[in-house]
Amino acid sequence: MTKWFTEKHSDTINFSIEVSKTLYSSQTKFQKLEVFENPELGKFFTLDDYLMITEKDEFIYHDMIVHVPMAVHPKAQRILVIGAGDGGTVRELCRYKTIEHIDMVEIDEEVVTVCKKYFPNSTTGFNDPRVQLYFMDGLAFVSSKIDEYDLIIVDSTDPFSVGEGLFTKTFYKDCFRALKDDGILVNQHESPFYTHYQKNMQRAHKRIKETFPIARVYQAFIPTYASGHWLFGFASKKYDPIKGVDFEKWLKLGLKTKYYNPELHLGSFALPNYVKELLEKESL
Amino acid sequence: MTKWFTEKHSDTINFSIEVSKTLYSSQTKFQKLEVFENPELGKFFTLDDYLMITEKDEFIYHDMIVHVPMAVHPKAQRILVIGAGDGGTVRELCRYKTIEHIDMVEIDEEVVTVCKKYFPNSTTGFNDPRVQLYFMDGLAFVSSKIDEYDLIIVDSTDPFSVGEGLFTKTFYKDCFRALKDDGILVNQHESPFYTHYQKNMQRAHKRIKETFPIARVYQAFIPTYASGHWLFGFASKKYDPIKGVDFEKWLKLGLKTKYYNPELHLGSFALPNYVKELLEKESL
Repeated sequence: MTKWFTEKHSDTINFSIEVSKTLYSSQTKFQKLEVFENPELGKFFTLDDYLMITEKDEFIYHDMIVHVPMAVHPKAQRILVIGAGDGGTVRELCRYKTIEHIDMVEIDEEVVTVCKKYFPNSTTGFNDPRVQLYFMDGLAFVSSKIDEYDLIIVDSTDPFSVGEGLFTKTFYKDCFRALKDDGILVNQHESPFYTHYQKNMQRAHKRIKETFPIARVYQAFIPTYASGHWLFGFASKKYDPIKGVDFEKWLKLGLKTKYYNPELHLGSFALPNYVKELLEKESL
Repeated sequence: MTKWFTEKHSDTINFSIEVSKTLYSSQTKFQKLEVFENPELGKFFTLDDYLMITEKDEFIYHDMIVHVPMAVHPKAQRILVIGAGDGGTVRELCRYKTIEHIDMVEIDEEVVTVCKKYFPNSTTGFNDPRVQLYFMDGLAFVSSKIDEYDLIIVDSTDPFSVGEGLFTKTFYKDCFRALKDDGILVNQHESPFYTHYQKNMQRAHKRIKETFPIARVYQAFIPTYASGHWLFGFASKKYDPIKGVDFEKWLKLGLKTKYYNPELHLGSFALPNYVKELLEKESL
């Protein structure tokens, strides 16, 4: 009998992927973790029945969560990454020679162990000597830091699962304090389409806007996430994500990217009217 | 027992919508036509088990297929629409007072009859005196036209169904001839992500590029279409879709749109690198 992995995009909408092979299945200390394979998407892993990354489209998410802030910040040297156990975010960061140090804080060590085994292409960054891994709660970690990072990337699960604390006002305030005077916070910011996600997006934006002087939202086409229309939050103490960005400098780095490019960077901040209205309303 | 409508996004990926009510089901002269209802998406209709429009996100597709070329063309007065039986494209066109005449050619009269009944908000344009409806094959219709239209919009089904002929080289050549010296052709252009759609996208682009001096591709977030990353083809004899567009003039029209705006117009042409590479390769 055919086996399927199904994620509910809404109460009445299912996204189902045929599983050609189950590679791993476990209840970790924090969540259900499974690794599957599918002919179209390659290997993919899930947490509590939510799809995290697939081999076919993980590059989109990781390009957008890393290269957008790295193109904006003129000199990002110390970085904090929260979540991101699959390794893709750290892999992309490690391509920048200018980065001196990356702290990565993942609550669930088993995610890293399993991803190292099944997603070798995503986890190359974990071997980089600049990367220090901490297996603990990101909230607790960031709360003790002051004026330390140029960039914080919150690469979390959804606010309705283990990632809940990473969408609170306290957490955003702690990130603000942990950042230097010209620091940037980027986070995965849910999706504007299905009702359930829409509310989480609105709530996250409201809280970030109350904390940071510059708070913008940008978007990417991520086919295997609910609705395919995924958002990122760009919060900043000083730098605007569009005006004054030195794209020539970024291009000179010669990084080959499968999704990101400077025109797309600008375009990703051009939101549809209905999304702008939802963000302005901030109903929660 | 719960009833579901399932569309295959690829051979091994299913998108399933719970059907709270089946409103219509028929085998027309050309295809299977069904109208369903779902709590999240509202009413939606399908042709040969492919989702055409939902009440919740049809505005995205129709904004992008209409307002992009209408903002570019400085004086579009005579328009030809092929397909588009749901009425959304003609509804958006009819908001432009400057348009003098719209010919709409839909092969399947039953689609129009059924959409008039179940989608009254999409079909208001059919009552506009400037609109002339023809129920016939779009290929045959356009082949007899010379130097007649400012804009042709091909709002067709996929090339693997009734819409097949609307993705051929002969058809694009006929469109070229039917357009005036500064005419524009816009078509729904499939999707870059899943293998099957990708090939259709590449083939369409190759053929259009061989026919028109300007051939560009733009994108929109359409959550209920396969992958959510949908493309449109912009082919033109004279006007560039970005350079020299008079957005001030468009804004002065005062059209309220839920998706489209001038910044997004520009952003929609900023394609991800992997999509640009696929379009350049044009493997078929």
